[in-house]
Amino acid sequence: MIKVTFLPDNRNIEVNKGTSLLEALAKAGILIETPCGGKGICGKCKILIKSGNTNISNLEKKFISPQEIEKGFRLACQTRIYKPIEIEIPSKIRLNLQPVLSSFLKGEKKSYKKNLPLEPEVEKFFLILAKPELDDQRSDWERILEELSRQRGRNHPPPQISLSLLKKIPALIREADFKITITLGHKEVIAIEKGNTTNQMYGIAFDLGTTTVVGYLIDLKKGKEISVVARTNSQIIYGDNVISRIEFTQREKNGLSLLQKEIISTVNEIIQEIIKCTQINQKDIYEIVAVGNTCMQHLFLGLDPINLALSPYISVSREEFYLKAQEISDLLLEPETKVYFPSNISSFVGSDILAGIVFNSMWRKKRNSLLIDLGTNGEIVLSLKGELWACSTAAGPAWEGVRIAFGMRAVDGAIDKVKINKRRINWHTIGGIKAKGICGSGIIDLVSEMLKVGLIDRSGRIVDREGCPAEISQEIKNRIIEEAGERRFLLVKSNEKEKNKEIYFTQKDIREVQVAKAALQAGIKILLKEVGISVKDIQVIFLAGAFGNFINKQSALRIGILPDLPLNKIKSVGNAAGKGAELILCSQKIRKIGNEIYKKVKYVELSSHPDFSREFIEAMSF
Amino acid sequence: MIKVTFLPDNRNIEVNKGTSLLEALAKAGILIETPCGGKGICGKCKILIKSGNTNISNLEKKFISPQEIEKGFRLACQTRIYKPIEIEIPSKIRLNLQPVLSSFLKGEKKSYKKNLPLEPEVEKFFLILAKPELDDQRSDWERILEELSRQRGRNHPPPQISLSLLKKIPALIREADFKITITLGHKEVIAIEKGNTTNQMYGIAFDLGTTTVVGYLIDLKKGKEISVVARTNSQIIYGDNVISRIEFTQREKNGLSLLQKEIISTVNEIIQEIIKCTQINQKDIYEIVAVGNTCMQHLFLGLDPINLALSPYISVSREEFYLKAQEISDLLLEPETKVYFPSNISSFVGSDILAGIVFNSMWRKKRNSLLIDLGTNGEIVLSLKGELWACSTAAGPAWEGVRIAFGMRAVDGAIDKVKINKRRINWHTIGGIKAKGICGSGIIDLVSEMLKVGLIDRSGRIVDREGCPAEISQEIKNRIIEEAGERRFLLVKSNEKEKNKEIYFTQKDIREVQVAKAALQAGIKILLKEVGISVKDIQVIFLAGAFGNFINKQSALRIGILPDLPLNKIKSVGNAAGKGAELILCSQKIRKIGNEIYKKVKYVELSSHPDFSREFIEAMSF
Repeated sequence: MIKVTFLPDNRNIEVNKGTSLLEALAKAGILIETPCGGKGICGKCKILIKSGNTNISNLEKKFISPQEIEKGFRLACQTRIYKPIEIEIPSKIRLNLQPVLSSFLKGEKKSYKKNLPLEPEVEKFFLILAKPELDDQRSDWERILEELSRQRGRNHPPPQISLSLLKKIPALIREADFKITITLGHKEVIAIEKGNTTNQMYGIAFDLGTTTVVGYLIDLKKGKEISVVARTNSQIIYGDNVISRIEFTQREKNGLSLLQKEIISTVNEIIQEIIKCTQINQKDIYEIVAVGNTCMQHLFLGLDPINLALSPYISVSREEFYLKAQEISDLLLEPETKVYFPSNISSFVGSDILAGIVFNSMWRKKRNSLLIDLGTNGEIVLSLKGELWACSTAAGPAWEGVRIAFGMRAVDGAIDKVKINKRRINWHTIGGIKAKGICGSGIIDLVSEMLKVGLIDRSGRIVDREGCPAEISQEIKNRIIEEAGERRFLLVKSNEKEKNKEIYFTQKDIREVQVAKAALQAGIKILLKEVGISVKDIQVIFLAGAFGNFINKQSALRIGILPDLPLNKIKSVGNAAGKGAELILCSQKIRKIGNEIYKKVKYVELSSHPDFSREFIEAMSF
Repeated sequence: MIKVTFLPDNRNIEVNKGTSLLEALAKAGILIETPCGGKGICGKCKILIKSGNTNISNLEKKFISPQEIEKGFRLACQTRIYKPIEIEIPSKIRLNLQPVLSSFLKGEKKSYKKNLPLEPEVEKFFLILAKPELDDQRSDWERILEELSRQRGRNHPPPQISLSLLKKIPALIREADFKITITLGHKEVIAIEKGNTTNQMYGIAFDLGTTTVVGYLIDLKKGKEISVVARTNSQIIYGDNVISRIEFTQREKNGLSLLQKEIISTVNEIIQEIIKCTQINQKDIYEIVAVGNTCMQHLFLGLDPINLALSPYISVSREEFYLKAQEISDLLLEPETKVYFPSNISSFVGSDILAGIVFNSMWRKKRNSLLIDLGTNGEIVLSLKGELWACSTAAGPAWEGVRIAFGMRAVDGAIDKVKINKRRINWHTIGGIKAKGICGSGIIDLVSEMLKVGLIDRSGRIVDREGCPAEISQEIKNRIIEEAGERRFLLVKSNEKEKNKEIYFTQKDIREVQVAKAALQAGIKILLKEVGISVKDIQVIFLAGAFGNFINKQSALRIGILPDLPLNKIKSVGNAAGKGAELILCSQKIRKIGNEIYKKVKYVELSSHPDFSREFIEAMSF
């Protein structure tokens, strides 16, 4: 074992010879940004080796200058550990998602306090059993079944019981003087406990996001949300989008198993935090419901995701799936705890979207609605009075700061709001600290404002200083810079605030935004065309996903991310996926509805749609 | 680890310090007789220590003379191993059941050759799946389910699949070019295989007897019995009846786990032997059905049997039980193989008797019948045109040679047939070798013949020489010996054949036979009384159990083991339990019938029955 020290944390771990630095970081619990998923093609994971390893690959030389090489800079993803090493991890590449998470959670709390409808799959029954007599020689299990049937009604088939629970019965019921509580779920026994424990009954709804995993603890007796805990999906170190993670499973031996371990470890952290905060017992958690995109479901279950990424894009299973916690190694739940994965709609429209449909009652026949879920991917669902269509677009990366020169996640120091008028530029950073880059909502504001004052034209081209509208001040005009044939806009000057570095928004960045918004817009157009209605026929747009809570709708409308509808018809619904998962956890009826509609959602595959290219190109302009 | 050598086998094993000699014998695979279950109260497990241990307990001194102690005789059950030791195991205490098993199997083959009705729980379907296309993006599992549903009919609910099988699907169906065979059982997927394997489909029916375990391999495609393999239940070393085994689970730490391991190891031996003999693949065995008495079911599953032995005699579960082979550690079957335990009727009337009822169609409304299953226990079932009553009696031990001075199991050297007339005594031994003792069928013959010629009277008393009928020869009269106030009958003289030792049948032995037959007779009487019919109303008696094939019915009738009916109404049906298990394996319909009638069988608890004592005493006379 070789010692690795991470600075400035001064955290020490030991790893096997040849371990990759990414793996070592994961082991140490330090999360860093690896947008390309560790392939060595983005150059973002630059770290500083203070002592130890010195080799460098040609790949790394593309991203690291000779002076930097001299100092010890390397790419974390290309470094393997062969001898004791000290490594400094610069704060700028660390993932510090606290601000996003807390505002995310704030958004949750605000919009969602009502009680949940209560008819959970998990049920508890307190049974007082007749004691055995010579003229009542029923078996222990029969005694339980018959008392249960008396309470529940005779029309329920008897639940199945596992051998391991059956083994516990004779001692348990006698110690409990034949007074026990039995917990059922999905036609099986989940637990048998001494005495009356019917008041302790919890479940957790999980939204397994590509970037963020959120767990909602629900009191299944009262139908109330007790606790919400979010954590960064620690798979992120192996790729920040599903495609790079799928590639990782193919590239690395045991890649699938590594990714499964990471998501399980994130879920375990959430469970532990929930238990710590609420002081409930782990054994009182009887069911978890997990929604996520189809790839996350595959990675959690350890199903090979490769065919999701290869045309014609096939999942192993999109059907609802029940399992016991014991089937997933290391999951910190009682062995018999139920784990329920609702159905996925398609390979790229997961159960998170099904949960969103359910949460927003889009299956009802009452109106036409559109759900736009902007996360790392962008999914769109259209409801024509309950008839459903869905598609998925690669609309996300730009909004997460990926492929944008100064792009970054919505963490401390990210510009999240921008205002431009004739004379002034105002911007705001998360945490109110010095600007380090620009995140999704800032990008949308910036493009929208530049468009508004005429700094870019409808085609997305940054105008030259001469082409600027006359009323724009010279100070602003001077921010348009042309160098090596590419125009860019200076958003933050190095001297504007102390120590602020210059932040630019380039012509190429605008093209990325155009591609992302065109993908989304083309998706919406094609869905509308498939259904045969126009934007005007839509009564409400649900804007979901963490992102949906923070963007300026006016800006989004102006640059065409959202269809042209009055602002009051656009409703931010927060994390619809998580809220839908809560409903599925709390209501058998809603669970059934979800499992009835998933096959009825008509999935429109955009990549092979005959109109997609044309719509996409047409949507490029603002 | 300490070396133990068994002579004359010269077999060496190593054990931990303090291991009991019984355990060491089990480990070495040497089976010996331990009628009392290792409690040190029968003194039958006498072995000779050639070198090593020398301690002796006071308990042992009761059974071993000072001269024997000097030589190194000890009781195996009381000896623990602390230093290297050489032990001679006398052949007379070894269990060598080959002759019984082979005649047992011969009996099977003879009486049971017809094809089985075929509609097994296990079903196979060969599926040619549509290959994925951009306009057919169904998941792998959905593709399978829909093709399955097309073949099977839409009215079947989709089967459940385990996560571990689901994981295998994507690679398997692509390697198989989308041509696969799926095996279903009890609403679940048991296997998914490449190509068309519908012709390979096997199951094993097990009769888990207290003494003998029999496995019947069935070709579930053809409904034919392919192979029958029997083995001594290796639990026997820890007690030769269920009560002594239950006591063992309480007395020994890990006793239950030890007993479970033994029965699993016996079942594994049978599976291996079947595979070896038939050359089938282990993976082609998709279901096993196991019947046995309630205690054997508990011990196989690892359920605590203690409450079976304590009034009011309660089982953990008597309901039918499905599990997967993987839930039983070390069972040599594929993890997903179904293991089915049919329902037990009561704590002392197990699924073996249910199988016997099913096999003899006693549930049909066509006639009145009586089933007598004589194994280590005696179970009786009465059918009044399909209405069923059952009871269990401790009728067995004497028939197995237990508690009889020269009693032994039906192995080589056991006297199994006896004829006495005025002048001569003829007897026959199993294997035709010199007589070592007398087994069950010999005991019945002997008592019956002694009764016939007047050597014992109706009360069971051996008459004195003077009291003998006049026509009896002096030679025979001289065989009646009176010593220390007890009479006994000299069956075999030491000089009758070379090296033959003297074999006696004592007054006490006759009392044991009287107790056993009285228990059986009282049980039958009470059942008849409960139902309100007389013996004359019975149209047929089924005589089941290994024993049932070998006894002389005339002798059994004379001494009152069988009710007084014409011989042609008494039908030996062989191992009805095993044959019933075969039917349950082959026919869903019969399985269902079994599971419908088990609760309708009215169990009569003899121990608390008000008439039992009286009937028992009345039945003591011949």
